[in-house]
Amino acid sequence: MQDKPRVLVPFSAEDLGGFPAGLRVDTWDGTGDPPRDLADVAMYVLPYAGGQNTTDVLAEMSGLRVAQSLTAGVERLLPLLPPHVVLCNGRGLHDASAAEHALALILAAQRDLPRWVRDQDAHRWAPHFTRSLAGSRVLILGYGSIGAALDTRLRACEAEVVRVARARRPAEHVHGIAELPDLLPHADILVSILPDTDHTRGLLGAKELALLPDEALVVNIGRGTAVDTLALVAETASGRLRVALDVTDPEPPPAEHPLWSAANVLITPHVAGGSATFYPRARRFVADQLRRFAEGRDLRNVVPRD
Amino acid sequence: MQDKPRVLVPFSAEDLGGFPAGLRVDTWDGTGDPPRDLADVAMYVLPYAGGQNTTDVLAEMSGLRVAQSLTAGVERLLPLLPPHVVLCNGRGLHDASAAEHALALILAAQRDLPRWVRDQDAHRWAPHFTRSLAGSRVLILGYGSIGAALDTRLRACEAEVVRVARARRPAEHVHGIAELPDLLPHADILVSILPDTDHTRGLLGAKELALLPDEALVVNIGRGTAVDTLALVAETASGRLRVALDVTDPEPPPAEHPLWSAANVLITPHVAGGSATFYPRARRFVADQLRRFAEGRDLRNVVPRD
Repeated sequence: MQDKPRVLVPFSAEDLGGFPAGLRVDTWDGTGDPPRDLADVAMYVLPYAGGQNTTDVLAEMSGLRVAQSLTAGVERLLPLLPPHVVLCNGRGLHDASAAEHALALILAAQRDLPRWVRDQDAHRWAPHFTRSLAGSRVLILGYGSIGAALDTRLRACEAEVVRVARARRPAEHVHGIAELPDLLPHADILVSILPDTDHTRGLLGAKELALLPDEALVVNIGRGTAVDTLALVAETASGRLRVALDVTDPEPPPAEHPLWSAANVLITPHVAGGSATFYPRARRFVADQLRRFAEGRDLRNVVPRD
Repeated sequence: MQDKPRVLVPFSAEDLGGFPAGLRVDTWDGTGDPPRDLADVAMYVLPYAGGQNTTDVLAEMSGLRVAQSLTAGVERLLPLLPPHVVLCNGRGLHDASAAEHALALILAAQRDLPRWVRDQDAHRWAPHFTRSLAGSRVLILGYGSIGAALDTRLRACEAEVVRVARARRPAEHVHGIAELPDLLPHADILVSILPDTDHTRGLLGAKELALLPDEALVVNIGRGTAVDTLALVAETASGRLRVALDVTDPEPPPAEHPLWSAANVLITPHVAGGSATFYPRARRFVADQLRRFAEGRDLRNVVPRD
């Protein structure tokens, strides 16, 4: 049965509740050496948390027809794939995890958690009054499926949500990016979930940040390139803005970068999407995607390529 | 008009949208020296974040008829008041703030925020996979108005909630405390919102904590006395349980207490109820309570006294 298409996935048959009968499936989770003789791999599901070798192997896959990423952003993968290869992304798989991490960052900043951690290390009990999320107005920039998951959480926390995306979607109460200058002055909290594209790079520069009210909180869980990092550092050095970032530009920041020790900045190392709630979703998705591939049906999450 | 009842409140007329006409109102927010000649104070609204002198003045208030606390727990105030004084508490005013802080503690623990803060201080970028709140089962112990506010937030975060209170309330799906031994083994996260009473003191001892599954998270935003602190420290020292506390016993822990540096323990200094979302609610409540007092109507939040 060497004519069955060969597939390379990061999950075991047990993980996926079995493999479809019409496929030859090899498992590689990105640890250890990659499998050999990859020229006949027709579909490759890239390990989620893999290193450089998980993309290096693409060069050997001359028969590749489908590349399935488990990340939502695929900007690093796109240039590695010939135009005829169908690329599918992990849109939706990280919604709960990423929205939850954004909420964690917002609450940590509003309720001064970094200060309490440092006080604890000094065995110091020094209560003070904090901000809250309830009653705050949160502007979500790049309102898609992660934004919607965050929206639900924020409204349960009694926050008001303002939705902004590249194009207006009046039926969903989503503002267009052109309205941003009118919306920023009224945002207590700005959350960027923007991807890295030609349209988003540097979108939040010194001018846009200056429109935010004093003591506003800037959160980024999208891609670091959407924000001008040095403009952000300047706004925190002056004490005017507060910041919580899961993504940075450059990423990671070099050890001597001023971002690390800027006042009122909280940094997490690009971990929003990678939490326990991701894997059950990813396994269900990949199992479905393999069935679709085996049966020649349309795949989900195909990334449009110019 | 010296026959108008005299009232001492921690808010200004502007804060409250004016004072009722039938009262003589003095303002003292707990800072600076207390007002003099307090014998004719008929109603006293204690400053929320006041020090020792805000309760010391009670000794001078020989004509006191109503004491209004802005905290939910009044165990420290009760012994200071003669039995004929009506005591009202701040039940409900802290629901959003306290529930929000509980959520902040839960998310901080699940998403490893203390570790990221310490990594940031070391300019270290070292991502790893974390737990999540989504998909977790959270047992809320002491399910009242704060618990309900937390419940709403947790369900929006895709967590499952199990409700426990002193007495069963089947219509609200609230289990009775007697069922606790059957419920603890299935809780990923246990949140205590128990007050300090004869019924709650030491309720979570070594035996109860031992029923929790490995790596469960114990959160306390009620009163520290509900949990056996040394049993908790033992469970964290072994690496078996994780802990996030806004209240402790003793409170605050002395500088040399093992709780401060126990593994997987996050401590905040009793700040759950005190955040920005509290004051607007407190002002609305006090304005209403003053009107009720001026008009001789029933007061809200009267604490039953034996």
